[in-house]
Amino acid sequence: MKPVTKTLATLALTAPLAACTSQSDERPNVVLFLIDDLGWLDTSVAFGEECYPFNLRHDTPNIQRLSDEGAIMTSAYVCPVSTPTRTSIMSGMNAAHTRITNYTSVRKDWNPDATDTPSAQENDVLNRTEWNVNGITPIEREGLTRSVHVTPYPQLLKDAGYYTIHVGKGHWAPGGTPAANPHNMGFCVNVAGQIAGKPRSYYGEENYGNTSEAWNFFSVQNMAEYYGSGTHLTEALTLEALKTLDYPIERGIPFYLNFCHHAVHTPIHRDPRFFDKYVERGMDEGQARFASMVEGVDKSLGDLMAYLEAKGVADNTVVIFLSDNGGNSENLSKGGVRHTQNSPLREGKGSCYEAGIRVPMIVWWPKRVASGVRLNTPAMAEDIFPTVLAMAGVEGYKTVQELDGKNLVPLLTDGSQYVKQAMMAGEITSQQEANRYVVPESISGIDPERVVTAHFPHQWKPYQLDDIDYLSSVRKGDWKLVYRHRTQALELYNIGEDVTERNDLSASHPEKVHELAVVLSERLRGWDALMPTIRATGKPVPMPDEVAKANI
Amino acid sequence: MKPVTKTLATLALTAPLAACTSQSDERPNVVLFLIDDLGWLDTSVAFGEECYPFNLRHDTPNIQRLSDEGAIMTSAYVCPVSTPTRTSIMSGMNAAHTRITNYTSVRKDWNPDATDTPSAQENDVLNRTEWNVNGITPIEREGLTRSVHVTPYPQLLKDAGYYTIHVGKGHWAPGGTPAANPHNMGFCVNVAGQIAGKPRSYYGEENYGNTSEAWNFFSVQNMAEYYGSGTHLTEALTLEALKTLDYPIERGIPFYLNFCHHAVHTPIHRDPRFFDKYVERGMDEGQARFASMVEGVDKSLGDLMAYLEAKGVADNTVVIFLSDNGGNSENLSKGGVRHTQNSPLREGKGSCYEAGIRVPMIVWWPKRVASGVRLNTPAMAEDIFPTVLAMAGVEGYKTVQELDGKNLVPLLTDGSQYVKQAMMAGEITSQQEANRYVVPESISGIDPERVVTAHFPHQWKPYQLDDIDYLSSVRKGDWKLVYRHRTQALELYNIGEDVTERNDLSASHPEKVHELAVVLSERLRGWDALMPTIRATGKPVPMPDEVAKANI
Repeated sequence: MKPVTKTLATLALTAPLAACTSQSDERPNVVLFLIDDLGWLDTSVAFGEECYPFNLRHDTPNIQRLSDEGAIMTSAYVCPVSTPTRTSIMSGMNAAHTRITNYTSVRKDWNPDATDTPSAQENDVLNRTEWNVNGITPIEREGLTRSVHVTPYPQLLKDAGYYTIHVGKGHWAPGGTPAANPHNMGFCVNVAGQIAGKPRSYYGEENYGNTSEAWNFFSVQNMAEYYGSGTHLTEALTLEALKTLDYPIERGIPFYLNFCHHAVHTPIHRDPRFFDKYVERGMDEGQARFASMVEGVDKSLGDLMAYLEAKGVADNTVVIFLSDNGGNSENLSKGGVRHTQNSPLREGKGSCYEAGIRVPMIVWWPKRVASGVRLNTPAMAEDIFPTVLAMAGVEGYKTVQELDGKNLVPLLTDGSQYVKQAMMAGEITSQQEANRYVVPESISGIDPERVVTAHFPHQWKPYQLDDIDYLSSVRKGDWKLVYRHRTQALELYNIGEDVTERNDLSASHPEKVHELAVVLSERLRGWDALMPTIRATGKPVPMPDEVAKANI
Repeated sequence: MKPVTKTLATLALTAPLAACTSQSDERPNVVLFLIDDLGWLDTSVAFGEECYPFNLRHDTPNIQRLSDEGAIMTSAYVCPVSTPTRTSIMSGMNAAHTRITNYTSVRKDWNPDATDTPSAQENDVLNRTEWNVNGITPIEREGLTRSVHVTPYPQLLKDAGYYTIHVGKGHWAPGGTPAANPHNMGFCVNVAGQIAGKPRSYYGEENYGNTSEAWNFFSVQNMAEYYGSGTHLTEALTLEALKTLDYPIERGIPFYLNFCHHAVHTPIHRDPRFFDKYVERGMDEGQARFASMVEGVDKSLGDLMAYLEAKGVADNTVVIFLSDNGGNSENLSKGGVRHTQNSPLREGKGSCYEAGIRVPMIVWWPKRVASGVRLNTPAMAEDIFPTVLAMAGVEGYKTVQELDGKNLVPLLTDGSQYVKQAMMAGEITSQQEANRYVVPESISGIDPERVVTAHFPHQWKPYQLDDIDYLSSVRKGDWKLVYRHRTQALELYNIGEDVTERNDLSASHPEKVHELAVVLSERLRGWDALMPTIRATGKPVPMPDEVAKANI
């Protein structure tokens, strides 16, 4: 390099205050920190009534700190797979309502339901559903079918003066559709917004998949700075996310950061910052790789928190930590024994059993959310929409879609203070009691026994998986009903007593089965949800209340 | 699609004024509208002393309008190829000074000088130079060599409160370096910022190169919305650029848009909006494809202007229209006869003859730049840096590099008014007179006979091209000297009389040769510019004044 440095200066010294400042804008910044495929048991934060052995696998000090200083949502529910959760978040609608119940392909008009092998469909008793394979769209466009027109909340935030940033995985819709572009979703800034459900590679050495030999639609964009480096994708996305924040922070503009990590989705690619440690602890290769990815995400959260503190805005920033579905218990590249990796929860990603849909969720909001509390009122993916807008003080907004989600802010603020008081008063003395302490609807605005549904009318893999494919479920209070579309079997669990869903009580509690079947069926009918058709008859799989009625 | 539209609303109705507005910020918006490989004769705007036949090939009504309402820079000079111009713009330095004199590869530490065939180098009398193949960098980074650390002006604009947006081709540095990332260059927003010098494809039908079969580093990122569509890349980039402008405009924040089209660089891919028209006019396939690309760029400019007007900000926006080098006269995919496509100028892209370095430039600034004037004071790529900062009112800034460029604002404002007065007074009655009318240095702050150098110590293609490879040149007033490194020959032209550079006057004007050789040598020595070495002796090619001295 030729020395051309003649006039010395640092950029920091040449940064005057912007002309456009808004110091009086006290609206909070909001970060949705969305992790992919992170299971309920994958962090040191025990969301259950006790700390299970699997909570001890991974070092997650920053997620732990977030939970110590914020509220643990013990009953947060999303969808069994990625896109339905992400489109529920962006639309405020339940996935059964949008009819986006499976993950979208990178290709428009393509149904990725598992038919990779002809026998997968031919041997099935069901035909696959005609769901909205083109995801959501923020813009109606001629010729775009099987798509749901919605007003995404980032657009409403932007309209209200928020600086909106998307980083990482999108997966709201296929290529060739408006939602393939974060700028159409209401984001001012897009970094690496991706139509695919996973990255081609997490490795800088592999250019995150951007090589002539490896490229496919999963290759990650906007990362050329790190090509050939040892920077893991989780770190690269973090560095890029922080770069985008200086503009709004220096100008006093409130921001919304939609920070969507690809981790800890497959491919299970080691994060070199943490891998060796887990090998030394005796983990096998796959477990250590996965553990390093989890800790990479934890480090990303820590880096974000440190940045917000260094910039002096942490006190006025909300962080919502969430996973898009349960931990993957089907792919063995992460090590462990298939179908057990979310123990004691049953099954994993793809399933309507707890491990597929019950996920880590923490909300951190200094001074507004009480620290170290547990809130067991169910939260759902579609709640994010009205909740973020309420946090931002956006009211009276209009959307083209009908919202299903609830505003969680009263629960998070008044509700968490209510629980904190009980803790201080000694009314809560154990983790189990904390997990069962009820915030009344009069405070939170939400029925603590609100109905939580899940609906997955699909086969996930090219082979049949009885505990994953073609399931629906409903939870109300401690009771949960699971409906199997292939066999039209109904199972009943008391997940308050039996979080593992191993003790089917349907035979002994037919009235409870019927009650929940009616609740689930009413929801599904109200949303005009899709059911698969039975190959033999050509008729739709009956609603669960029809089955329950027949059983009584 | 399932009809879920229950609450009707339009986004336009839900866009209140932002909390952060700055109506009193009267600083102008600035758009650098940078075209790739657009030749001096490629538009209907006649930059020369007359309208040449080649000015009549393409319909460019919007570029014409820009020139009618703004100032035509008749003597705008850049570098023979892309990266040197783009890094000069971003650094404010002459390319000979940065030692970035050829285009950068997509790969770090890779010298793309033409050695594709072993014979190309072996048969040459010169060894290739060790230029700064890693381009510029806004951040010093350990292990990064052959790179020049600079403070890019978008960073200074951002620091001063401007909202800075990059769209399209970057080509400031290879992958794996900081300048591969527009966010490091001071841009708040990056759309499709590219390390490569051209797009893999202009066709939406080909996903702009994003297919497993076609992918390479030239495939365009951030365009998933248009995959499979008939949207030409020029239109897609335009649509995306406009999307990024609503945020600053609605909030009254001044913006800088670095709008860098890939067009009209190869591959010469038809713009379907305009192609048929040119075929009907009798053009051959290649000519019609190229013509449609030129008109596509013109349409982009028109769409931008219409958008600025519709938003009410056109009156306070500067548009700088510029090409990064001359028209390509070597690639026959655009039709025509090789080496003649910039007629009457000599040669084309890659060359230090006029057609390689003299480019279309127009500056449009309502109320500040007089309309319909011609300014013949030379402008150079490195002038953009101080000029844009002056337009934005940024003063007293510090940079790690020493600037070579001049602030063109006094020329553009007071100078254009001075010329306009002369036009009104009837002192200028012809295009030729207009092109020769001089704005004195007392008004513009710039010597109308300022020294313009070009330096290309490289072989461009895998085969030798005598009128392109290994040339340097200097222009001062009407006189121009061309120095051939291979033969150490000096040629002298009076481009005021002979814009074609066909009449070599060196034999009859040895003193003028010597005078210009001294000027050129002083510049090159002052910048510590690289000269190739002579294979036979291992010594550098002598400076032109050593040759001129020997010739006297």
